Amino acid sequence: MALPLEGIRILDFTRYQQGPFATVMLGDMGAEVWKVEEPRGGDFGRRMWKEPDGFTGFFEALDRGKQSVCIDLRTNEGPAIALRLGELCDVVVENFRPGTLERWGLGYDAFRARNPRIIYAQASGWGQRGPMAEQPSFDQIAQAYSGYATHSGGGPGSRPEVSYPGIADQSGGMNLAFGIMTALFVRERTGIGQKVSVSLLGTQLALQSPEIVHALHFGWERPREFRASPTVGHYECSDGRWVMIVGIDQKFWPRIARALGVDELITDERFARGFPRWSNRAQLEPLLEARFLMQPAQHWLDRLREEDVPASLVREYADLADDEQAAANGYIVEYEHPRFGKEKTVGLHVELSETPGRLGSAAPLIGADTARVLEMARYSRDEVADLATRGVVALGSE
Amino acid sequence: MALPLEGIRILDFTRYQQGPFATVMLGDMGAEVWKVEEPRGGDFGRRMWKEPDGFTGFFEALDRGKQSVCIDLRTNEGPAIALRLGELCDVVVENFRPGTLERWGLGYDAFRARNPRIIYAQASGWGQRGPMAEQPSFDQIAQAYSGYATHSGGGPGSRPEVSYPGIADQSGGMNLAFGIMTALFVRERTGIGQKVSVSLLGTQLALQSPEIVHALHFGWERPREFRASPTVGHYECSDGRWVMIVGIDQKFWPRIARALGVDELITDERFARGFPRWSNRAQLEPLLEARFLMQPAQHWLDRLREEDVPASLVREYADLADDEQAAANGYIVEYEHPRFGKEKTVGLHVELSETPGRLGSAAPLIGADTARVLEMARYSRDEVADLATRGVVALGSE
Repeated sequence: MALPLEGIRILDFTRYQQGPFATVMLGDMGAEVWKVEEPRGGDFGRRMWKEPDGFTGFFEALDRGKQSVCIDLRTNEGPAIALRLGELCDVVVENFRPGTLERWGLGYDAFRARNPRIIYAQASGWGQRGPMAEQPSFDQIAQAYSGYATHSGGGPGSRPEVSYPGIADQSGGMNLAFGIMTALFVRERTGIGQKVSVSLLGTQLALQSPEIVHALHFGWERPREFRASPTVGHYECSDGRWVMIVGIDQKFWPRIARALGVDELITDERFARGFPRWSNRAQLEPLLEARFLMQPAQHWLDRLREEDVPASLVREYADLADDEQAAANGYIVEYEHPRFGKEKTVGLHVELSETPGRLGSAAPLIGADTARVLEMARYSRDEVADLATRGVVALGSE
Repeated sequence: MALPLEGIRILDFTRYQQGPFATVMLGDMGAEVWKVEEPRGGDFGRRMWKEPDGFTGFFEALDRGKQSVCIDLRTNEGPAIALRLGELCDVVVENFRPGTLERWGLGYDAFRARNPRIIYAQASGWGQRGPMAEQPSFDQIAQAYSGYATHSGGGPGSRPEVSYPGIADQSGGMNLAFGIMTALFVRERTGIGQKVSVSLLGTQLALQSPEIVHALHFGWERPREFRASPTVGHYECSDGRWVMIVGIDQKFWPRIARALGVDELITDERFARGFPRWSNRAQLEPLLEARFLMQPAQHWLDRLREEDVPASLVREYADLADDEQAAANGYIVEYEHPRFGKEKTVGLHVELSETPGRLGSAAPLIGADTARVLEMARYSRDEVADLATRGVVALGSE
């Protein structure tokens, strides 16, 4: 059975996180990804979180399933090589600051002139226009500018929080992958190639669109408290672990009260309906907190399950390694890493029944594919050797 | 110029947030979205965050650009109507618990039997297999189970936090939209229709893949502190506002020190390089905190800009309404709401140069499109009136 993106080839200039996660997703779906890296050290992501054993979870997660082609784009000859590779590709992806690739002669127009069907995808910090467009950005900048850090911290007046560094990049990558697939679909139907643009800022606003649409209409930000309500949030148990419950509509209230053994609260007029439960949360939450603290987490999870209340243990990453649910769906999979042996990793998260993707191979060694890819673009072995001698490209060392 | 998804029609059984956000994205790209709602009250999302004026940011953000078709799927006749609508559609999307639509005779096989090219997309809580598959889930459950709430709270041993309720749903919607576009692309190339599955759990793990891959290899979770490092994080200024800086590689350190007027720290051996800056962060951060507290945010933003350090004010949603950068890229746009008049909303966040999308219209009144859509499926006016009288469908009231 063919892979969904069988035959689609991507010239990938992305670095760090936002762009690379998009091309991991496309690679898992079967696209061939040529990751262009600078010869001296390659993508900075190779050094992120690197531990003494040489393993970097950052690079493995964001660059698996790709091939590494080292070209120095700052040389006179480098850009011409990249353009020639672009003739063999369906998609170019990059996340430099707007204007950078253009200055190297590698803008959309340059690729389109040689390959009119090319899709040229840009992930930026700020979008392609506006006063900030050429400023640098990063994940945390987008979290700050978009209002995310403030809302996460508890809203205006609270201490802002970057509660999850990387969330803007990672969701930006998903959004970029969606944009590229939309453009590939259009091209398949109409033959039209085009430019696709997403940004950290645009994706952050989209992620928050319900809250922001509320604020744009009313002029005030909805409260962001520790719990969304007494019946939607997490409680500490006697063993120090926490249990999350989500009793989002009225039917769950009697079930929760029964599970906790506080049946008398079901009809208590302060708590019987959603609005008073919310207004009187300062009275109700301590009652529920006290109950949860009386038994260990598993006790309450069993009781909540019996009453059909959506609930979960609040878990740590250490709980994932042997998690049956994640494994059953291929979200955590085992594979053979050429250097580290048997490893577990985060697998595919989009399942297609008839043309499924498959886990890409381990992140490539730097420059491992330079020679082979250049030869596909009809550079002779001698030319490749010469370019390598002069430092325009770099070949992987075995 | 045609819209990217011109002619693509979606039969949309989604409710709440994860599914609905995906179909907003597809609707903005030009797909026609028939939102199937139950006749009595419709999607629960219509009541989320509703204020006395009748406006709900939740529903407006998650259901704009759709058409409302009210069918009671719990009646004997309801499912047959939905199947007949499916013959006119390219994609079916749903986010019920796995098995629910099957019980109503509306599973993939039923739609495929009438329309072999149909794409049937499911967004679940837990994935399609595994011991939890048929359990209920919600955004916060996925945040808890995936380790996100623990990491956001500061890692194991800290108080877990649901720092942004909705983030699992909203990113799940993006991931679902990607899956649907991948399947549409495959269908365009090969004619194959298929089932697409994503889940809150799968998406949450993917969002965290760099951190999780690290933890799976090393067995320990990277620290999640208030600041990622002394040069990557936010600082309070004399006016009570916060400034975010991201000096992620070595070149930024002298620039940050100069901007703050602490040039003497540049070569201080405790702070001169990345690793000692991290090890000695308990000494360095208070020095930087004290400097930031000496001047208002704008002063420091100007200085940081002069030194070319990526920086931003930590903003609130109130800052977005008139934000020039968001407006320049169409991320915040003004439109005419039929009931509320001139409104601002979160616009498109994926830009296509040749076949751009466009903002969908305001969220539909309940049942507004029932009659028209049923007539497209060759129900006569009399039949529609009869179905409405018997409560199988509901027509919008004018």
